[in-house]
Amino acid sequence: MSVKENALSILALGGVNEIGKNMYVIQYSNDIVIIDCGAKFPDESLLGVDLIIPDISFLQENKEKIRALIVTHGHEDHIGGIPYFLKKLNVPIYATRLTLGLIELKLKEHNLLGDTELIQINSDSKLEFGEMVLDFFKTNHSIPDCLGVTMHTPEGTVVHTGDFKFDLTPMNDQYPDIHKMAKIGSEGVLVLLSESTNAERPGSSPSEHLVGSHIEEAFMQAKQKVILSTFASNVNRVQQVVNAALKTNRKLALIGRSMVNVVTVAIERGYLEVPDGMLIQPQEVDSYAPERVAVLCTGSQGEPFAALSRLSSSNYRDMSILPDDTVILASTPIPGNERDVSRIIDNLFQLGAKVIYGSGTVTGMHVSGHAYQEELKLMLTLMKPKYFIPIHGEYRMLHQHRLLAESVGVEKDHTFIINNGDVVDIENSVARQTRKVAAGNTFVDGVGVGDVGEIVLRDRKQLSEDGMLVIVITLSKTERKIVSGPDTISRGFVYVQNSEDLLKNVNRLVTKTVNDLQSEKIYRWNIIKQTIKKELGQYLFNQTKKKPMILPIIIEI
Amino acid sequence: MSVKENALSILALGGVNEIGKNMYVIQYSNDIVIIDCGAKFPDESLLGVDLIIPDISFLQENKEKIRALIVTHGHEDHIGGIPYFLKKLNVPIYATRLTLGLIELKLKEHNLLGDTELIQINSDSKLEFGEMVLDFFKTNHSIPDCLGVTMHTPEGTVVHTGDFKFDLTPMNDQYPDIHKMAKIGSEGVLVLLSESTNAERPGSSPSEHLVGSHIEEAFMQAKQKVILSTFASNVNRVQQVVNAALKTNRKLALIGRSMVNVVTVAIERGYLEVPDGMLIQPQEVDSYAPERVAVLCTGSQGEPFAALSRLSSSNYRDMSILPDDTVILASTPIPGNERDVSRIIDNLFQLGAKVIYGSGTVTGMHVSGHAYQEELKLMLTLMKPKYFIPIHGEYRMLHQHRLLAESVGVEKDHTFIINNGDVVDIENSVARQTRKVAAGNTFVDGVGVGDVGEIVLRDRKQLSEDGMLVIVITLSKTERKIVSGPDTISRGFVYVQNSEDLLKNVNRLVTKTVNDLQSEKIYRWNIIKQTIKKELGQYLFNQTKKKPMILPIIIEI
Repeated sequence: MSVKENALSILALGGVNEIGKNMYVIQYSNDIVIIDCGAKFPDESLLGVDLIIPDISFLQENKEKIRALIVTHGHEDHIGGIPYFLKKLNVPIYATRLTLGLIELKLKEHNLLGDTELIQINSDSKLEFGEMVLDFFKTNHSIPDCLGVTMHTPEGTVVHTGDFKFDLTPMNDQYPDIHKMAKIGSEGVLVLLSESTNAERPGSSPSEHLVGSHIEEAFMQAKQKVILSTFASNVNRVQQVVNAALKTNRKLALIGRSMVNVVTVAIERGYLEVPDGMLIQPQEVDSYAPERVAVLCTGSQGEPFAALSRLSSSNYRDMSILPDDTVILASTPIPGNERDVSRIIDNLFQLGAKVIYGSGTVTGMHVSGHAYQEELKLMLTLMKPKYFIPIHGEYRMLHQHRLLAESVGVEKDHTFIINNGDVVDIENSVARQTRKVAAGNTFVDGVGVGDVGEIVLRDRKQLSEDGMLVIVITLSKTERKIVSGPDTISRGFVYVQNSEDLLKNVNRLVTKTVNDLQSEKIYRWNIIKQTIKKELGQYLFNQTKKKPMILPIIIEI
Repeated sequence: MSVKENALSILALGGVNEIGKNMYVIQYSNDIVIIDCGAKFPDESLLGVDLIIPDISFLQENKEKIRALIVTHGHEDHIGGIPYFLKKLNVPIYATRLTLGLIELKLKEHNLLGDTELIQINSDSKLEFGEMVLDFFKTNHSIPDCLGVTMHTPEGTVVHTGDFKFDLTPMNDQYPDIHKMAKIGSEGVLVLLSESTNAERPGSSPSEHLVGSHIEEAFMQAKQKVILSTFASNVNRVQQVVNAALKTNRKLALIGRSMVNVVTVAIERGYLEVPDGMLIQPQEVDSYAPERVAVLCTGSQGEPFAALSRLSSSNYRDMSILPDDTVILASTPIPGNERDVSRIIDNLFQLGAKVIYGSGTVTGMHVSGHAYQEELKLMLTLMKPKYFIPIHGEYRMLHQHRLLAESVGVEKDHTFIINNGDVVDIENSVARQTRKVAAGNTFVDGVGVGDVGEIVLRDRKQLSEDGMLVIVITLSKTERKIVSGPDTISRGFVYVQNSEDLLKNVNRLVTKTVNDLQSEKIYRWNIIKQTIKKELGQYLFNQTKKKPMILPIIIEI
């Protein structure tokens, strides 16, 4: 990206037209600041892919200009890409105390701790990079210690909200700093980037405090063990579970690696208060009276290898769910996870448990951490931006957010709905979206980063749907004829024992195809292979309506 | 199943602990009646499987006893298995006029029309099979012409509700016959089988009539074309769309094969009234003023090849969605389909359309066809059964339905939550669940029925996640050494061009493995293959954290 001197440019490398892998770039003149570096979990169409991270080739090309990675909060879609990012680029990371703790956990897992400068900031910090001056404001979200970012440039002020809601009765004094936001707005905002997750939802999101009273009530009524599953990162909700356990005189066991990790960091850093002696090990659970113990575990999204799933299928060594235990799913399934969550609920009922589940507003066991429409309008009203870029959402959310912006006075053509890679340039207070840089998905598969792509995934898709057929033929170079084979190996296609006739016909067809070619004096391997693929593919599709991958292997001796 | 003389047995071959492939079997002495023969769509874990139908081996073993297949209504999960069933068993089919029309469509597609006796019945019909006497009662559901089934046997009366709700202001006079149900209940019901789809939902389902007023309002407000997508089989909703089009003076085009088919059958058989000249062809749409035309199409569940998906991606030849057109999704995504539906909504917004979407109760554009809790309690109260078998639902739904039954007086141990294949035997008015017959899933994949199973699917899963590596080696029998290869073919594993070093090391490792074995005078192919798989699998996992399928191929010359 060739940027003019004294020009301001804004772009996303991830996070727009999607939920996940947030990464935003603000450049003024020759200084680049990155906001967030998230990951995204693949949907079922990305066969075998473990994680998706942003394509950072634009940053690699401009690495000498990068001054900082600012991280707004400690959720996976904002920090999950950091280890992969650091393997390519060494950039100092700025974040609050809890967020840094969670980043450190991640770097430790990847053996990267110590390689990069980690700088703790808070909402009063001020940072200068070239002619950019950054300061911050407190927001409230489903994890503590969140920041919005204000970037003052000679061209004007850019505000990035991070993830937020306006919870005015928050846990642990995590009030959104409305006064500071108002002041920023009064001083003039050139561009606002605001998150759009719940832009489709009318009204305002309920306070996290409401969840607390429902958890407490469930703990009171439970006659046996209570098992509660929620996102480990929702430290405020964890605090409410601790409070309910305390009030009902229960010990608390933690199950699930991320639950143990996050709770440990949160206690160490002062974001979670747990009385001494309350925490017990999972294997101690059974030694307490059931009405004196509770369990807090991961897996509320139905993840097959997480604690709740293993507990529900009696596949966890240290303790069991017994009849009349109470299981609480303190979350709402993210679209795509409903089936896995439902399967767990079925299993829990079969174990005889009392299960409290359903969408959060029905059970009162979950509230969203993201602003609804009225809150988004409040942010827009506080900031009064000249230009608006809705971020952090799929297209329909960005679209609805644009309508909200118009409803509170942002001019119609002053909202930019961008794709990842689209650049908004602002010069002399006029914003234009005209150019594009490289952006996209980088797939993490096993330890490989970027070593699978569309061709590999297309092959996996074909293999997954109809399997494959390997055909091995040995040809004599001198006699120009088949000396052994065809031998057929079928995987993922049909049961061999049920399909003997089919496979015999396959062999006959391949033999005939090869013999015909030989008699026409066609000996070139690639022609023989292509012809086998074509003839056999046609035959198999007619017979089975399947299109297995056909791999002819020719050995010449 | 060896049944005693004069004994009554009830079982499900599909439909319990699942939504889909409903098939229930009632046997008295030597006479078997089957109720429904449905199919089910596979979830994403069943790679490449097109359709799931019940395993009918129990029926094949008892074919001389089967007297009838009674079909309660024309939905896929009740009729979708019929073509596959008829290829194995020739059984007369009894159903109402519309249901038979939809079954005939299906048989025509499979070239089976005329092979089997199709007998039209209505709610006044009476059928006798041995000592069983069957009669029927009208119910209301999201498709017209639905029946409940009453089976009188010397042992007592068995009632099967079919799918139902209590819509007391229904479309087209499809009133549930509450008086007849009350009479059946008064005369005594031994066993009730009642559907459980919405057993988790409190209250009563709204009337289909409410949808009509919302559709009409949207048609009134639309300034351009209206495109409405719903289930083709919901003939009553289609009628309301026709009415709204009539009221707003719009022509109506139908897009999607099943929409055209179902509407044609419904008009022919008198379940749908469409004024002459109202229907136009899709390619005529653009020749009308946009405010004078509407489109009714399939694909409301986000099916990738259905009409709405193609329209939303501008991938449909005959007409286009233009800015300011109104698109209505008159349905709620079935769990698992949310992502596909969301993608379509995103695309529609990008085309500039006004999109009316969201859960049915919010937009008023959809109501469920299945009874909520209060309606299920009404059915249980009307029927006053001694024994209760909740059907048509996943475990948690059956479980909640059991609690509802208890709440209206069914004795706690008189409810049987069964699995497919579990038999409930009733003798001397006492029900017991003690034995099991073969039951399960038969997969339809292409034209193959039952030719894929767990091994094939396991292979597909491995192939889909990590791909495969074929290793070809040619060994000399006389010299006992490798004469050519190893040659490596990688598909769905890694990009070859990015992984040259890895693949070189693979070749080195295989060569060494084979040479080592040869020098130890180990020549047996299966040992060589096993050793290659083990060594190479270990190496590749260490290097890549992937586990591709490894297929060593040895040619001996």
